[in-house]
Amino acid sequence: MTNFIYQAPTKVIFGQGVTAQTGQLLKEQGAKKVLVHFGGKSARNSGVLDKICASLEEAGIPYITLGGVVPNPRLSLVYEGIELCRKEQVDFLLAVGGGSVIDSAKAIGYGMANPFDVWELYDKKREAVGCLPIGCVLTIAAAGSEMSDSSVITKEEGSIKRGYNSPFCRCRFAVMDPELTYTLPPYQTASGIVDIMMHTMERYFVTETTLELTDAMAESLLRTVIKNAHILWEDPTNYQARAEIMWAGSLSHNGLMNCGGPKGDWACHQLEHELSGMFDVAHGAGLASIWGTWARYVLEEKPERFARFACQVFCFSPGSSPAETGEKGITAMESFFRSIRMPTSLTELGLHVTEEQVTELAHKCAFGGRSIGSFKSLCEKDMAEIYRRAR
Amino acid sequence: MTNFIYQAPTKVIFGQGVTAQTGQLLKEQGAKKVLVHFGGKSARNSGVLDKICASLEEAGIPYITLGGVVPNPRLSLVYEGIELCRKEQVDFLLAVGGGSVIDSAKAIGYGMANPFDVWELYDKKREAVGCLPIGCVLTIAAAGSEMSDSSVITKEEGSIKRGYNSPFCRCRFAVMDPELTYTLPPYQTASGIVDIMMHTMERYFVTETTLELTDAMAESLLRTVIKNAHILWEDPTNYQARAEIMWAGSLSHNGLMNCGGPKGDWACHQLEHELSGMFDVAHGAGLASIWGTWARYVLEEKPERFARFACQVFCFSPGSSPAETGEKGITAMESFFRSIRMPTSLTELGLHVTEEQVTELAHKCAFGGRSIGSFKSLCEKDMAEIYRRAR
Repeated sequence: MTNFIYQAPTKVIFGQGVTAQTGQLLKEQGAKKVLVHFGGKSARNSGVLDKICASLEEAGIPYITLGGVVPNPRLSLVYEGIELCRKEQVDFLLAVGGGSVIDSAKAIGYGMANPFDVWELYDKKREAVGCLPIGCVLTIAAAGSEMSDSSVITKEEGSIKRGYNSPFCRCRFAVMDPELTYTLPPYQTASGIVDIMMHTMERYFVTETTLELTDAMAESLLRTVIKNAHILWEDPTNYQARAEIMWAGSLSHNGLMNCGGPKGDWACHQLEHELSGMFDVAHGAGLASIWGTWARYVLEEKPERFARFACQVFCFSPGSSPAETGEKGITAMESFFRSIRMPTSLTELGLHVTEEQVTELAHKCAFGGRSIGSFKSLCEKDMAEIYRRAR
Repeated sequence: MTNFIYQAPTKVIFGQGVTAQTGQLLKEQGAKKVLVHFGGKSARNSGVLDKICASLEEAGIPYITLGGVVPNPRLSLVYEGIELCRKEQVDFLLAVGGGSVIDSAKAIGYGMANPFDVWELYDKKREAVGCLPIGCVLTIAAAGSEMSDSSVITKEEGSIKRGYNSPFCRCRFAVMDPELTYTLPPYQTASGIVDIMMHTMERYFVTETTLELTDAMAESLLRTVIKNAHILWEDPTNYQARAEIMWAGSLSHNGLMNCGGPKGDWACHQLEHELSGMFDVAHGAGLASIWGTWARYVLEEKPERFARFACQVFCFSPGSSPAETGEKGITAMESFFRSIRMPTSLTELGLHVTEEQVTELAHKCAFGGRSIGSFKSLCEKDMAEIYRRAR
């Protein structure tokens, strides 16, 4: 096992009706002027935004609003947010939404606290020295950004999607009412579920010795998500199932599933970032569309790990070889994806990717000549082959 | 399920050789003058204390030391620590030891930050408004105090052992090197293991609906601890097993195992506090000696919960009734306790408790006319009956 540092300081307020506490939480944090950052119509139409603004007014906290965050959040809106916050002397950011809105707020927060173009962080040219404090009201269970140290932003020019991680951007608090996710379209719920599972699986698929305790909790999380995904598919307003998925989303990406293991593989995330950068697909759906191809491409590096996955997550008995058992687990995961109408190929994702685009995707993913992944280190040629086979 | 608040902000630095980072961590925290608080000879003899002092000196952090903490830490030493810290203008407490040392430091921290006798907190007469910041170097995996919001202190006059919980006392950092626990006597290792399991089991045995994700992680934790306890029994310097147990100790008591459930039962902890208050027994051993009796006393309130425990933790198949399956789980847990030489009765704990002492223990436990437990609410008469049957 590996030495590790674990710190997930976000204060989570979880349950029915907790949204009304938002103003009080901002007061506790000493916020003087807040930017309420959100996405599109759904925050307005659902009434969530009104509830939150009322809570801020009740607590006597001045605020301004900035909507318009889209999935795969854009750098241009981040710049707009930074300018607005400077002008209005905002000292606290409140993200109302899912990962895209929280990540956009994180980028604005970095922009406010660092004396250079914020894109230089995402472009790996600089390191952050701070971030304006952020809180969130979560309305989509998926990205885990409410407790994580990561954010992902897309630069429109060249459709470049990049992530940046630092402890500075961890939310001070996260208000999590599972009822706020009742109205998500099934496709978005399912895409979120894949993202949640992938945050654990990216960390789980490593070749080094890990902590048994972390492995066992990761497998518990995956089994719980699968079970409750099926419940939600039949009954989208099942409170308990929404709560299970929402809490799993936070635990999957707050660092807990890394303890004692190396950083994880993350190749699928990198491969997907290029897909959603170029084609603007839903992140979770993009992940589902390539995971199986990735898994078969790397299986032989350590088939025992995939065999354990098959036995612990899908309750298979060990077969004649670890590779055979592992293949059963991969197939079972793909069946699960299809059962919640998630794609298991680029064609099912709705993309008809040409050979030229395969080359371009791989070339962009291998920027700076980098390789990705740790279960098996993948160079540009491997990336192209996975995109090709995933079609 | 229940609404919940979860916040466990402690920065954990975990692994081989991390003790040398202590000075740097104190520097990050802005410590100006540190009290290094520890127990007896073992911290000195093992060389841990020297290593830590060297690390503080290297970081240029002035410190004083106060040793002498004993298991079931005493109020008199807490008073001495408060006086010393005031005189020396200490602004940061560093606990080097296990739960007793950390809890003693927490009490000193409360004493420094609250303008009244610190015992009034433990006596439930006042609420804390703050606590001096605390960090720790953990040398015993047991109490979980390194990440928890709780501390337990014993007042010598009347042998009264009481706990107090508040978010103020959470450690700012916890340095956790599993190798530091290699030299623990087997009895202390085993007693710690029981304490770790009980922190999860106290939360697990509730009658209300819980979060499936929390239940599944709790069961994973218990299975992992049982497996690694057996490994340690044969091989006390097995690094991986020491690491599994140490990390389980933190996760068991940092609040994670409460998420979505009510506060937990905690009757066994209350019953044990009287035992160790009166007889100064090891906390974990005291818990082991009464758990089985408690479990059989309350089983019928919700046998389904004990049946789930039996199936998930000990892999039994469901029997003819939940109560029958549940009883199998209780027996299996007692067998596990005995396999690591932990007592399953007061006699095995080495106590010959008279009927008069049973009455006194129950009377002290029911102070202020309180009842304890939530799986089944226990009044003074129930407490006496459990002590009696546990003999």
